[in-house]
Amino acid sequence: MTRAFNFSAGPATLPEAVLRQAQQEMLEWNGVGASIVEISHRSAEFMAMAAQAEAGLRRLVGIPDDYAVLFLGGGATTQQALIPLNFAAPGQRADYVVSGHWGKTAIKQATPYVDVNVAASSEAGGFRDIPARAQWQLSPDAAYVHVTANETIHGVEYRDVPDVGDVPLVADFSSSIASEPIDVARYGVIYAGAQKNLGPVGITVVIIRRDLLERSGQPRADIFDYRSHAARDSMLNTPPTWNWYLLGLTVQWMLEQGGVDAFAKLSQAKSALLYDAIDGSGGFYRNEVAPAARSRMNVPFFLPDAELDARFVAEAKAAGLLALKGHKAVGGIRASLYNAMPLQGVQALVAFMRDFQQRNG
Amino acid sequence: MTRAFNFSAGPATLPEAVLRQAQQEMLEWNGVGASIVEISHRSAEFMAMAAQAEAGLRRLVGIPDDYAVLFLGGGATTQQALIPLNFAAPGQRADYVVSGHWGKTAIKQATPYVDVNVAASSEAGGFRDIPARAQWQLSPDAAYVHVTANETIHGVEYRDVPDVGDVPLVADFSSSIASEPIDVARYGVIYAGAQKNLGPVGITVVIIRRDLLERSGQPRADIFDYRSHAARDSMLNTPPTWNWYLLGLTVQWMLEQGGVDAFAKLSQAKSALLYDAIDGSGGFYRNEVAPAARSRMNVPFFLPDAELDARFVAEAKAAGLLALKGHKAVGGIRASLYNAMPLQGVQALVAFMRDFQQRNG
Repeated sequence: MTRAFNFSAGPATLPEAVLRQAQQEMLEWNGVGASIVEISHRSAEFMAMAAQAEAGLRRLVGIPDDYAVLFLGGGATTQQALIPLNFAAPGQRADYVVSGHWGKTAIKQATPYVDVNVAASSEAGGFRDIPARAQWQLSPDAAYVHVTANETIHGVEYRDVPDVGDVPLVADFSSSIASEPIDVARYGVIYAGAQKNLGPVGITVVIIRRDLLERSGQPRADIFDYRSHAARDSMLNTPPTWNWYLLGLTVQWMLEQGGVDAFAKLSQAKSALLYDAIDGSGGFYRNEVAPAARSRMNVPFFLPDAELDARFVAEAKAAGLLALKGHKAVGGIRASLYNAMPLQGVQALVAFMRDFQQRNG
Repeated sequence: MTRAFNFSAGPATLPEAVLRQAQQEMLEWNGVGASIVEISHRSAEFMAMAAQAEAGLRRLVGIPDDYAVLFLGGGATTQQALIPLNFAAPGQRADYVVSGHWGKTAIKQATPYVDVNVAASSEAGGFRDIPARAQWQLSPDAAYVHVTANETIHGVEYRDVPDVGDVPLVADFSSSIASEPIDVARYGVIYAGAQKNLGPVGITVVIIRRDLLERSGQPRADIFDYRSHAARDSMLNTPPTWNWYLLGLTVQWMLEQGGVDAFAKLSQAKSALLYDAIDGSGGFYRNEVAPAARSRMNVPFFLPDAELDARFVAEAKAAGLLALKGHKAVGGIRASLYNAMPLQGVQALVAFMRDFQQRNG
């Protein structure tokens, strides 16, 4: 058994302690005579675990009581369709600020349901920055304003919460939740696929200010109605139970490590180490994102040519540094530095980068 | 570690061999240096596993090439909303035949999108039978006819495929897929939550005759569009990868056990053993379903009173026979006999039933 440093953008590396516990409990969990993947979501034991996972997430992220927390299947992309269905009247205006690929995906999913206003976009500049707040063309009658807190592909991250007045701010936090303190009260809705910072793939967290649940939204199936999911504690239908369990273990691990304050420091240290290595390489490695908008979670960079990019990825893999190939939309290299990536992984990557540059620079 | 016989209706018992393999591979899978839950769904290794799982499922169930197979999150209930969105024009008539709780759920999800015609229902009789085909009031212009192949709560199962002419037959096979041969070509769409006969919770299989994908359906988000999922091999967004993997292991196990022919014989033997014990109890145990419509998968039964029902469930649990409490909609006892439940489990249940009756009859 050889576990390498895994820089995958998601699904992504998990804490080894979490995997070991899941392994140990795979055939029987909690003395119930069966695996947790085999028991009813409505059993007392599962419901207790689910409630504990929610309580842990509330403590970790600092979610106030006037916010509902849902645990849903279908991924973040499904939420990008459910958000307009639940929070906007048919054809109502909704503002979208686009700072990368996932902001565009959010618009694509919302377009059948709302009058999308692209309030600002950094696409013309290749998504290398967050559009300056002063330039946003917000609509006074918008149902909400949608932003992507961290763009996983382009490596662009908001470093503060934009002020959008009384219009609810809806944010895709898939790739940065729980990596630093979030002032949840500044948001109307926060959603996040779990497979980056919260643990396993196959479950998505949706955090909703409860007054927004009173909006009538649009005609929709019950299964698309956040109110129904909230009323049934995310057990309107069978939830992805094993994934919920693994999320709970990961949240517990993060709390034991010191919570978001500890991970904020760690992500700062990891990303600074890597950006310093890039910036100090005399141009051999290049990150093109505006320094103030650089992501702590996903660091895309380029070597002098695509042939060197490919050789870098292959040699890194052979050296135990996995999944460093950049997304096909941008090419190059991408290192994802989520909570479960230890500092040692980034130290190993930086050492490899120096060595690779010496041999190829 | 003590694994009991687990009669849960779903999530349900899994083959121990599958759990052992998942346990063994939890920290590193397939020599990739990471767990399968940590790697990209777009990695060559994961895509090969996913394709292999699909090929195995096609072989197991006998799915013709002119059918697409999708692996989706969100559960079967989500499909009950997506089916009208994808296959019916807005407000078009769709026929639903209701033989239990899940048929009603299907109608609830479809109602915002189609003109639901309840072509037949056995609700007046307490869902103890399949409505006779001769009584169905089908609509000539229906987008499709929806049936529930097996009703998990009421224990009612179709024993043949109803003839609905040229209108596509859509069937919820969540609780009976892969338990006996299915003539897939008789259906337009088959869907099934995996957590009963196909393995793990958190992933749903949708089998669609490809010509139906050409129907324009209704305005909908891309993530609600089966065409988009089919075009991207169910990787339109991040699928529930670990759940897909566990499904693949379970399918492989079923093929090794002899496929659906073997499980048809086994389910026949298991359910006959249990129904015989009920029918031979002199009325102490009662199953109220019409004999010709009795489910091979879910066997609900009642003791003389609710107090005895509760004592039965508690004592059975203490004896290593888990999750026998009936669904709250019907009460009593329910034993689910999916593919991974061995004959020995049912033999132990029947022996317990005889003993319990002697002590309480």
